[in-house]
Amino acid sequence: MIKVSVIGAKGRMGGNVVNAVTQADDTELALALDAGDDLTQVNPDNTDVAVEFTVPSVSLDNVLALIGQGVDVVVGTTGWTDEKLDQVRAALAAAPRKDQAVFIAPNFAISAVLADYFAGLAARYFESAEVVELHHPNKVDAPSGTAIHTAHTIADARRAAGLGPMPDATETDGGSRGQVIDGVHVHAVRLRGLNAHEEVLLGNAGEQLTIRADSFDRGSFMPGVLLAVRSVSAHPGLTIGLDKFLDL
Amino acid sequence: MIKVSVIGAKGRMGGNVVNAVTQADDTELALALDAGDDLTQVNPDNTDVAVEFTVPSVSLDNVLALIGQGVDVVVGTTGWTDEKLDQVRAALAAAPRKDQAVFIAPNFAISAVLADYFAGLAARYFESAEVVELHHPNKVDAPSGTAIHTAHTIADARRAAGLGPMPDATETDGGSRGQVIDGVHVHAVRLRGLNAHEEVLLGNAGEQLTIRADSFDRGSFMPGVLLAVRSVSAHPGLTIGLDKFLDL
Amino acid sequence: MIKVSVIGAKGRMGGNVVNAVTQADDTELALALDAGDDLTQVNPDNTDVAVEFTVPSVSLDNVLALIGQGVDVVVGTTGWTDEKLDQVRAALAAAPRKDQAVFIAPNFAISAVLADYFAGLAARYFESAEVVELHHPNKVDAPSGTAIHTAHTIADARRAAGLGPMPDATETDGGSRGQVIDGVHVHAVRLRGLNAHEEVLLGNAGEQLTIRADSFDRGSFMPGVLLAVRSVSAHPGLTIGLDKFLDL
Amino acid sequence: MIKVSVIGAKGRMGGNVVNAVTQADDTELALALDAGDDLTQVNPDNTDVAVEFTVPSVSLDNVLALIGQGVDVVVGTTGWTDEKLDQVRAALAAAPRKDQAVFIAPNFAISAVLADYFAGLAARYFESAEVVELHHPNKVDAPSGTAIHTAHTIADARRAAGLGPMPDATETDGGSRGQVIDGVHVHAVRLRGLNAHEEVLLGNAGEQLTIRADSFDRGSFMPGVLLAVRSVSAHPGLTIGLDKFLDL
Repeated sequence: MIKVSVIGAKGRMGGNVVNAVTQADDTELALALDAGDDLTQVNPDNTDVAVEFTVPSVSLDNVLALIGQGVDVVVGTTGWTDEKLDQVRAALAAAPRKDQAVFIAPNFAISAVLADYFAGLAARYFESAEVVELHHPNKVDAPSGTAIHTAHTIADARRAAGLGPMPDATETDGGSRGQVIDGVHVHAVRLRGLNAHEEVLLGNAGEQLTIRADSFDRGSFMPGVLLAVRSVSAHPGLTIGLDKFLDL
Repeated sequence: MIKVSVIGAKGRMGGNVVNAVTQADDTELALALDAGDDLTQVNPDNTDVAVEFTVPSVSLDNVLALIGQGVDVVVGTTGWTDEKLDQVRAALAAAPRKDQAVFIAPNFAISAVLADYFAGLAARYFESAEVVELHHPNKVDAPSGTAIHTAHTIADARRAAGLGPMPDATETDGGSRGQVIDGVHVHAVRLRGLNAHEEVLLGNAGEQLTIRADSFDRGSFMPGVLLAVRSVSAHPGLTIGLDKFLDL
Repeated sequence: MIKVSVIGAKGRMGGNVVNAVTQADDTELALALDAGDDLTQVNPDNTDVAVEFTVPSVSLDNVLALIGQGVDVVVGTTGWTDEKLDQVRAALAAAPRKDQAVFIAPNFAISAVLADYFAGLAARYFESAEVVELHHPNKVDAPSGTAIHTAHTIADARRAAGLGPMPDATETDGGSRGQVIDGVHVHAVRLRGLNAHEEVLLGNAGEQLTIRADSFDRGSFMPGVLLAVRSVSAHPGLTIGLDKFLDL
Repeated sequence: MIKVSVIGAKGRMGGNVVNAVTQADDTELALALDAGDDLTQVNPDNTDVAVEFTVPSVSLDNVLALIGQGVDVVVGTTGWTDEKLDQVRAALAAAPRKDQAVFIAPNFAISAVLADYFAGLAARYFESAEVVELHHPNKVDAPSGTAIHTAHTIADARRAAGLGPMPDATETDGGSRGQVIDGVHVHAVRLRGLNAHEEVLLGNAGEQLTIRADSFDRGSFMPGVLLAVRSVSAHPGLTIGLDKFLDL
C-alpha cells in the first residue's frame, strides 16, 4: 500500500484525490491537509507520496516544504515557470535523500496526454492536420493550452520529417479557418454541456485518421493522478508531463 | 417510367445523372445532350423531365428554351440571382401548359438538406449552437455556402423563439473561435481526403445533440436528383430547395 | 412565476429538479416533499404544477392523489403500464376541474427526444439505417429502451414509405452485426466514463447522415423537465412523450 | 527515382498503383503487366521494385518468379497462409542477391495501421475498450479482418499489463452487445455510402479516447503503397505489416 497525503484536500480537485486514493486497492489516505494546516505533519513515517493540488500562489512553497520533509511529491497545481521549476530542482539536489522525486503535470487526463502523443507520431504520415478543441462556455481563454501544445507537437513532427505547408487553396475567408498556430489550424468550439474535449484530424488522399480525447468531468484526472502516485518514486529528480510515466 | 433527358450529359455531374437515370427502376434516359446540341430535340413526346447540369453562363438560356419546349425541368447548375429567377417565373407564367414546373436546388445531397432542416427545428431548444464544416483543401471559399445557410437557419430559429446570445466567456482569442455569422460561430476545416461535410453541434447543460452530413463523392447528389425528377411535375411553377420535396 | 412542488425531493432526480426549479427565472419552488410527507399539503393555492420523481411502486398512487388535489402533474417516474395509464385517464375524467393535466415522459433529455424524432423523419430517404447506443458499464439491460424505440421509429417510417429490407450481403458473422429489432440493426457499447448516448447512422450512395444525442449527466434532463412544467397546463388530459411539447 | 513495375496493372488496385507511381516525385513507372504477360521482362535493369496486386490463386507464383528475377517485391494481394509465406522465405534464402526483399501487407491504409497500433499502446491505460467497424453493405464477412486484428491487439496489451475483464453489468441482451473476440466486444455496421472505417473506443471514469480510421476509397491505400515502395529495399528478407515501415 502506498501511503498518500493530500495537500489542498478541501479543494475540488483535492477532494477528488482523497476519494480516489481511498478507493484504489493499492493506495491509502494518510493525511488530508488544507490551507492553514501544518505541512511538517507530513513525513516519511506516515507518507510515501504527497499530492499537491492547491493554487499557484502557494504551490511552490508547499512543494519545497514537502521536499524538506523527505517525501515524494505529485503536483497538479498549474502556473509553473522555468524559474519556479529551477527552485524545485535545486531543492531536490540539496535534499538528503538522493532518490527523492517530484512530478509536475499540466494535464492528468490520460486520454488527452495520449491524444497529443499519438498526434505527434502520426503527423509525419499525413498531408493535412488540424485541431478542434471543444469546451464549456465559461472558459475564458481560447484555444486551450492543450490544443496549443498539440499544434506544436504536430508542427514539430512535420518539420522533423521535412514536410512542407499543408494543402489549402482558401482564397476568401472571414475567419472561419480558425487560428494558425505554428502552421496548424486550430478551432475552438464553446458549447453548454461540454467539459474539455480535443479532436485531431489527419488526412491523406482517400483516408482520415481522427484522434479524440473527451474529459467529461474532474474525475477524468484521477486515473492519471493514481498513475503518477504509483510511478513517481521510481523516477528520482524532477519529472514533467504524464507521458513520461506512460509506457509508450 | 419517367422519361428523362440530360442537358450537360458530358459534364461530371451530368454523366452521373445519366448513370443514375439509367439504373433507377422508374426512370429511363431519353436524350443525352451537351454543348452544341440542339435543345429543340427535347419535347413532350420524348421527355417528361429535363435535368440541366451545365454552367451558370448558359443555364438560364437552357432553362428558358426547355420551358418553351413544354417539358418540366430540374436544374442543378448554380449561380442563380433573383433577376434570373424572375425570368424563369415570367417564362413559366407565359407557358402554354399551365402546370409546367421548374425546380432549382443549391444542394442535392439529401443528408445536407436534412441536416440544415433539423438544425432549424432543434435550435430553439438549446443554449448553444455552432457549425463546423469540413472540405477538401482545393476549395477556394470558406466557410461553405451550406454552412453559411445553416448559420442563418439557426439564428432565425433562435430569434423566432426569443433566445438571446449564446453563452461565451471567451476573453482572449487569436482567431480560434472562428467566424461569427448572424451570431453563430462557424468553423471551416480543410483536410486532404475529405469531400464535403457539415456538423451542427447543439448543447444544453448536461446534453449535446450533433447532426452531421457527409457527402463522400458526387454520387451523393443522385438520390436527391432522382427525388427531384420524381417530384417536379407535381409542383407547378418554380420551386427552390430540395426540402420542398421532402415530406417533413 | 409557476409555483412548482417536487414529490421525491430527496431522490437524485428530485434533488436536481429542486435546483432547476429554484434557478429558472419563471419557476419557483413551492413544496419539497419526500416519502412519508403528506401530499394533501399540495393544493392549487400553493402549487401550479407538481413534479413527481419517485419509484414505480408508489408513483401511481401519488399521481392519483395529486389529481385529487386539483394540481397539474409532470411525472418522471418510469414503469407505466397501459393499465396504470388508464387509471390516470379515469381519474382525470372524474376530476372536478375539466382542464386538469398530467404529463408522463419516458425520457426528458431533449437531445434524445429530438434524435428519435429526426430519425423518423429522415429514415424514408435513406437505403440504410442502424442504431448504436453507448452507456456506462453498470447498465443491466441492452440495448437501451431508447434505442429500441428508435429502431421501431425507423422501421415504421420505412414501412410507411414502402421501403424494403436494407442492403446487407453479410454471409458470415459471429454476432458482430448486433441485434435486429424490427429489421433495424442495433448495437450496444458499454464503456466506463460514458453516461447515455445514442447515434443513428443513415446512408445512401455517397452520403451519410448521423444524428447523435449525448446525455452526459442527470442534469441533462432538467431542460426537458422545465419545458414540461411550462407546457403541461396548456394540454388538458393525459399527454405522453416530450415530443408532444416540442414545436416540431 | 525508384523504377517500379506493376503486376496486375489492369486490376482496380493495380490501376491505382500505376497512377500513384506515375504521379509521385520519386517514383517512375517501368512496366505495367497483367495476366498473360511474361514476368521475365521484369529485371534489375528496368525495375527496382515490383508491386504485385493480383489474386490469391496466382500471387505466390508471381512473387516466386519476381524473386527469381532479382527484384524486390511489394505485395498487396491477400490470402497468404503460413505455408505460402514459408515458400517466400525459402526463395529469398536461395536468392543469389543476399539483400533481396519482399514486403507483404494485409492493409496499406496508413490510418488503419496507425489506429491499430495506437489501440495497442493505449489499451493498458483504460478500463474499457470496444471496437466498432463500419463498411459498405456489399461486404460478405463480418466483422472485418482489421477489426478482428485490433481486438487481439487490445486483448494482448491488456494481458501484458495484467488487466482483468472489462466492467460490464449486462444481464439481458438479445445480441446488441456484439461479438466478443478475445474478450473485446466488436460491433459491425453495414451502411450504404460507407467504404471501410474502424473506431476504437477506450474509457476510464470521466474520460474517453476515440481513435478512428476512415478509408473513403481505394486511393486511401496509395500513400501506404508508396511508403512500402520507398522502404522495402532497406529491409532484406520477408517483412509483414506496414507498421514495420512506420517510424513509431
